[in-house]
Amino acid sequence: MERRPTIVDVARQAGVSKGLVSLALNDRPGVNQATKERIQAAAAEIGWRPNPAARSLTSRRAYALGLVVKRDPRIIETDPFFAAFIAGLETVLSDRGQVLVLSVVPDAGAEERSYRSLAADGRVDGFILTDLLRHDRRIALLAELGVRGVTLGEPDVPTTLPAVRREYEDGIDDLVRYLAGLGHERIAHVAGNEDMLHGRARREQFERVAAALGIEARVVPTDFSPEQGADATRTLLALDPGVRPTAIVYGNDPMAVAGMAVAQGAGLRIPDDLSVTGLDGSQIGQFVYPALTTLDNDPVEWGRVVASTLLDLVDGHEPVDRSLTPARLIVRGSTGAPTPRH
Amino acid sequence: MERRPTIVDVARQAGVSKGLVSLALNDRPGVNQATKERIQAAAAEIGWRPNPAARSLTSRRAYALGLVVKRDPRIIETDPFFAAFIAGLETVLSDRGQVLVLSVVPDAGAEERSYRSLAADGRVDGFILTDLLRHDRRIALLAELGVRGVTLGEPDVPTTLPAVRREYEDGIDDLVRYLAGLGHERIAHVAGNEDMLHGRARREQFERVAAALGIEARVVPTDFSPEQGADATRTLLALDPGVRPTAIVYGNDPMAVAGMAVAQGAGLRIPDDLSVTGLDGSQIGQFVYPALTTLDNDPVEWGRVVASTLLDLVDGHEPVDRSLTPARLIVRGSTGAPTPRH
Repeated sequence: MERRPTIVDVARQAGVSKGLVSLALNDRPGVNQATKERIQAAAAEIGWRPNPAARSLTSRRAYALGLVVKRDPRIIETDPFFAAFIAGLETVLSDRGQVLVLSVVPDAGAEERSYRSLAADGRVDGFILTDLLRHDRRIALLAELGVRGVTLGEPDVPTTLPAVRREYEDGIDDLVRYLAGLGHERIAHVAGNEDMLHGRARREQFERVAAALGIEARVVPTDFSPEQGADATRTLLALDPGVRPTAIVYGNDPMAVAGMAVAQGAGLRIPDDLSVTGLDGSQIGQFVYPALTTLDNDPVEWGRVVASTLLDLVDGHEPVDRSLTPARLIVRGSTGAPTPRH
Repeated sequence: MERRPTIVDVARQAGVSKGLVSLALNDRPGVNQATKERIQAAAAEIGWRPNPAARSLTSRRAYALGLVVKRDPRIIETDPFFAAFIAGLETVLSDRGQVLVLSVVPDAGAEERSYRSLAADGRVDGFILTDLLRHDRRIALLAELGVRGVTLGEPDVPTTLPAVRREYEDGIDDLVRYLAGLGHERIAHVAGNEDMLHGRARREQFERVAAALGIEARVVPTDFSPEQGADATRTLLALDPGVRPTAIVYGNDPMAVAGMAVAQGAGLRIPDDLSVTGLDGSQIGQFVYPALTTLDNDPVEWGRVVASTLLDLVDGHEPVDRSLTPARLIVRGSTGAPTPRH
């Protein structure tokens, strides 16, 4: 491996003492601004880079953010949010010379061990908390560990962690009003995991809007997996034609794709016999037939804003909540006016 | 943060000197086995954990593997391989107390900078090389940096890095023979990125088998994105009925999903009017209508074997190439006998 420049090389380059270089590069007092800038310029010139191991012993910084994901690998595989969210995080991390430390765990026990060891080992400067649960124990855990963090959405327990949120309720409102405007009077919601705050919030908003519009609403809970989206669809399509929904709002796009396939397999035409929508958007939703009507939820933007919010916190800024652009209704071919059955 | 146990605490617990603890826990000579085991038990009892920063200064180990991915975020979002591969890596990493350092970069320049800085900063013990390109410059770069690595598949340049491979050619052979057996005489291949070795190898194998069977083969190159998969399908369907393919083999499942939607949008019935297959498998391919015929390529298995192969190398074992179970043909509803057009 090529020899890396040391502060001795920087001192030679800048024509100052090694001690002065150390003070300047560690932002310690006792170096005037002009000298400090000359030293920093010299360091940049010869490509000096701090040794993260040495750094973290002194400055206690890992220059890394932690993401612990408690998911079944198979759910991660179909989750359109996960990969694009990571890509969004990375656009900011690479710009700021930081890395992502990723840990995927199967259960709550492994999840807690992972948070504890990453924090105790000083491997990360803060955690990104996704998939908030009801009464999420991670909020108290991070407080106990004394580490920084940012949540996607707001927890339902007291927290000092900043939250990044996206206004989603109005989008669900627009979506249900749009379906009602097409003439749908019986609309079902294949809801996501009720333990996840966002899954529950969406179901509640769906019921609020449906009630306000006098829509006959029916909710089937799932775990967000396409398997359960397909099963829920079979249950709904088995209902008596008089009560069977003419439109189904799925908790995410993969469930909507799977549900649409079940309906097509049963000989139903989309959208003539059944209107279908996803939630959260996804790239694949644009490419199935018919293309999915959905609510946009740009995961790349989520990643960018979450990373910059947490890095600002690590850099010593005050915690600030951030709001993304509200979720937007995207109308495609999977929705239309219901046609009377013969 | 709760105070973490030090080797002083371990020494007190085990009733031995601090120096002896240090020797024992760092696997240095001069400690008899019985004492060593008593010290290790004491360390485990009080939850002592080595400080990775201190460790990496002495043992020069980061206890982390690096994955640098050069992809457009939007391609990562639809790539069914990426997320499941990471999940597979993590199953092994978490078992062995290691973490994954992930860096997603937009271009070759950022990619090289990322490898150089992760290696120079000692942040990782080795790299996982995915998406091998023709004459891939990363092989020489890792040799220059003197860091360990494992490749997915075999590079076309001299290398000392172990490779993990999956026999895929026979699977393509089975797939094309299966389609020919159904009566298809004109089969197209919507190929992946020819710069990627696996994309090229699959196209070459497709052409070999087609020639051997006397099949009229046609190849359309793409970048593996569903957009280009859809465009290629429009091109093929615009051909004169006398030369238009009756079956299309796509380079991955997302392109097949997009292509199938284009055909359905044009009023074609799948598989009656057109048979469609993906490659590489994917969970969503099981849930579209009709479900995709494809070649299985379990990305979770890839992740598990790649991680253990690289960690064994880091632990000082000899580099060993590993072979996964050969790719397997999975027949679903998207393929059938061609029906004569009227």
